Amino acid sequence: MTVKKIRFASAAVNFYFDAGMGALRSIADPKKTVLITDEHVYEAHRSRFRGWEIIVIPAGEASKVQATVDHIIQQLLGLGATRETVLAGVGGGVVTDITGYVASIYMRGISFGFIPTTVLALVDASIGGKNGIDVGPFKNMVGTIRQPLFILHDPAFLKTLPPAEWSNGFAEIIKHACIGDAPMFRKLEAGSLQGYMKGKKDLELLIRRNALLKAKVVQGDEWETGSRRLLNFGHTLGHAIENSYGLMHGSAVAVGMAFACHLSKKETGFRHEARVKALLEQYGLPTAFSFDAGKVMEVLQKDKKRAGSAIRFVLLEKIGRGVLSALSLSTLEEEIACWPS
Amino acid sequence: MTVKKIRFASAAVNFYFDAGMGALRSIADPKKTVLITDEHVYEAHRSRFRGWEIIVIPAGEASKVQATVDHIIQQLLGLGATRETVLAGVGGGVVTDITGYVASIYMRGISFGFIPTTVLALVDASIGGKNGIDVGPFKNMVGTIRQPLFILHDPAFLKTLPPAEWSNGFAEIIKHACIGDAPMFRKLEAGSLQGYMKGKKDLELLIRRNALLKAKVVQGDEWETGSRRLLNFGHTLGHAIENSYGLMHGSAVAVGMAFACHLSKKETGFRHEARVKALLEQYGLPTAFSFDAGKVMEVLQKDKKRAGSAIRFVLLEKIGRGVLSALSLSTLEEEIACWPS
Repeated sequence: MTVKKIRFASAAVNFYFDAGMGALRSIADPKKTVLITDEHVYEAHRSRFRGWEIIVIPAGEASKVQATVDHIIQQLLGLGATRETVLAGVGGGVVTDITGYVASIYMRGISFGFIPTTVLALVDASIGGKNGIDVGPFKNMVGTIRQPLFILHDPAFLKTLPPAEWSNGFAEIIKHACIGDAPMFRKLEAGSLQGYMKGKKDLELLIRRNALLKAKVVQGDEWETGSRRLLNFGHTLGHAIENSYGLMHGSAVAVGMAFACHLSKKETGFRHEARVKALLEQYGLPTAFSFDAGKVMEVLQKDKKRAGSAIRFVLLEKIGRGVLSALSLSTLEEEIACWPS
Repeated sequence: MTVKKIRFASAAVNFYFDAGMGALRSIADPKKTVLITDEHVYEAHRSRFRGWEIIVIPAGEASKVQATVDHIIQQLLGLGATRETVLAGVGGGVVTDITGYVASIYMRGISFGFIPTTVLALVDASIGGKNGIDVGPFKNMVGTIRQPLFILHDPAFLKTLPPAEWSNGFAEIIKHACIGDAPMFRKLEAGSLQGYMKGKKDLELLIRRNALLKAKVVQGDEWETGSRRLLNFGHTLGHAIENSYGLMHGSAVAVGMAFACHLSKKETGFRHEARVKALLEQYGLPTAFSFDAGKVMEVLQKDKKRAGSAIRFVLLEKIGRGVLSALSLSTLEEEIACWPS
C-alpha cells in the first residue's frame, strides 16, 4: 500500500494506492461509518462488507437520480446517522457520485470517502470532488464540488468487472492521454486492453498515473474556472447523447472525442484524428454513432458549459495538448448536423 | 442606503441596509437573474417584480421540501438558466432557505442573493449561509452552508407583514439578546411590539443591530464547530415540536427558549427564567406548549446536534451570555417528561 496526500484548495485527500479493503478499518471507524454500494458489487463481494453498516442501491446510471438520494437519506435517518457519520462509497461512478452528493447535503455536510471498483471510477469519477445526479436527460445537472477524506484502491474488485466496463474506463484514460500525456498515448498504442486486464503491475501503474494526472489538473483549478475544463474533452457531445440514447459513459465520451477531433482538424489544424480514432477502436470503443441532431442540440442548449450563445468546447492542438475554444451554438449545430458523413 | 461588506471565511457578503428593491438593478443584471418568491409576497407586491424573470412557490413551511426544489430546477431548465445565472430569493425564511439550497446544487453551484421580506428573515434566516429543506418532521435535515453574494433590506415589504409574523421575528431578536446582548434585552423590555411596528427608525436600527450580531457570530465560526452553536438557543426542543405540531418557527423557538431557561436554572444557576418568559410574552410569544414527550424524544434522537448519547444544548449563564453544554439524552428525556409542570 502506498499513501499519498494530495492537497486541493478546499481540503486534502488521502490516496491509498494498491491497498485492500481491509485497510478501511484503520481509516474509518466501523461504528460511525456507513458503506454505500450497488447490487452488482454487493452480490459479487458480499464477504467484504461483513461487519459494516451498508446501504445497497440498484446498479446503473438510472439510479443517479433524486429518488435514490431520498432513499439513502431515509436509510441514514433509520440508522441514526449523525454529523459524525462517515459515508464510504464502494462502487463505480454512479455510487461515488451519489455518495459524495448525499454526504454534501445530509445535515448540511458530513465526511465521506471512496473505494472505487471500476477502472472508470479509479482513474476519473472518484477524483476531483465533483458529484451529482441527473435530471431527465441532463447529466450531473444537480450536485456540488466537495472533496472526499480518502480514496482507497483495492485492485481485487477489478476481477469481477465485466469486459464492457474495462473499455468504459479506458475511454477516460485515452482522454487523459489526448489532453495532457503524449507518452502515455504512445504507450497505449503499443499495448492492448487484454494486456492490461492480465498485467496486474502495468495496470496498477497506469491507474495511478491517471489518478495523479487528474488530481494535478484539479489541484490547479478546483472550481473549474480554467484549465480543469480540459477534462471535459469529449464530454459535451458525449453527455448530450449518453442519457438520451442510454449509452455507457465511456462509449458516449469516445464518440464525443472522435467528433472533437474532427472539429479540431478545422479549428486548430489538428492532424491526428485518425490516430485517436484508431486508439479508441483498439480499446473497444465506438467512434461514430447515429443520432438525431435536433434532439442533441436541444440538450446542448442546456449544457452547463454554455455561456450565452457560445459553448466552451475542448479541442486538441496535438496529441497531449488540449485547448479551450468558445464555439458558437450555430457553428456547432452545422457541424453536428453533417457529422460523421 | 448603507452598504457594508462582511467577510466570512468562504466568501464576502454585501449588506445593503435600508435600501429599496429598485437598487437590485444596480447589483444584479436583469437578463441573468431569476427571482424566487412565494405566492403571498408576489400577490402583495406584484408591481415590484415587473421586468424580472420570476419563479413563484407556494407560501409556508410545507414548501420547504424536495418537491419544491424539483419544481424550481425544472423551471430554471425551462428558462435556460446557466452557470452565470444569479438567483435572488425575495421572501421569508422558507424562500431564502430554498433559494440558497437550489443555488448551491444547480449546475454544482451558481450565485445568489436575498431580499428578506420578514423580520425573521431580516435578522436571522438570510444571514450565515445555512440553507436547507425539511425531511418529514426533521427540520433542515438536508442542505449546505454557502454564502449569498448580497443581502438587500427593503423595509417597504414589512408594511404588508401579518401581526403573527412580527412576533415570529422577535423570537430570534430575543434569542440574540439572551445569548449575547444584555443591553438590547433591556431595550426590548422597555419597548413593545406595537412601538417597533410603528417606529420606522427604531425598527431599522434594531434590525441592523441583529443582522450584524448574527453576522459577527457566523464570522467567528462559519462551519459551526464552536461558538456559532450558541445561535441554536431554543432551537433543539423548538425544532422537535415545530413541524410535528405545525407551529410557527418563532413560537416553537420561544417554547424552546423557555425550556432552556428552566434547564439553565438547574445546570448553570441561571436566575432570570421569569424575565425571559415575561419578555417573550410581552412580544406575543408562547412560553409553554403541551406536547407528547415520547414523540418529541423520537425527533430529538435524530437531531443534527446529537453526538453519541449526548446532545449539544445551549443554556444561559446570565442574560446576554449563552453557553454550550453536552446534555445526555436520558437527562433531557426526564426533564422534557415533567416540563412545564
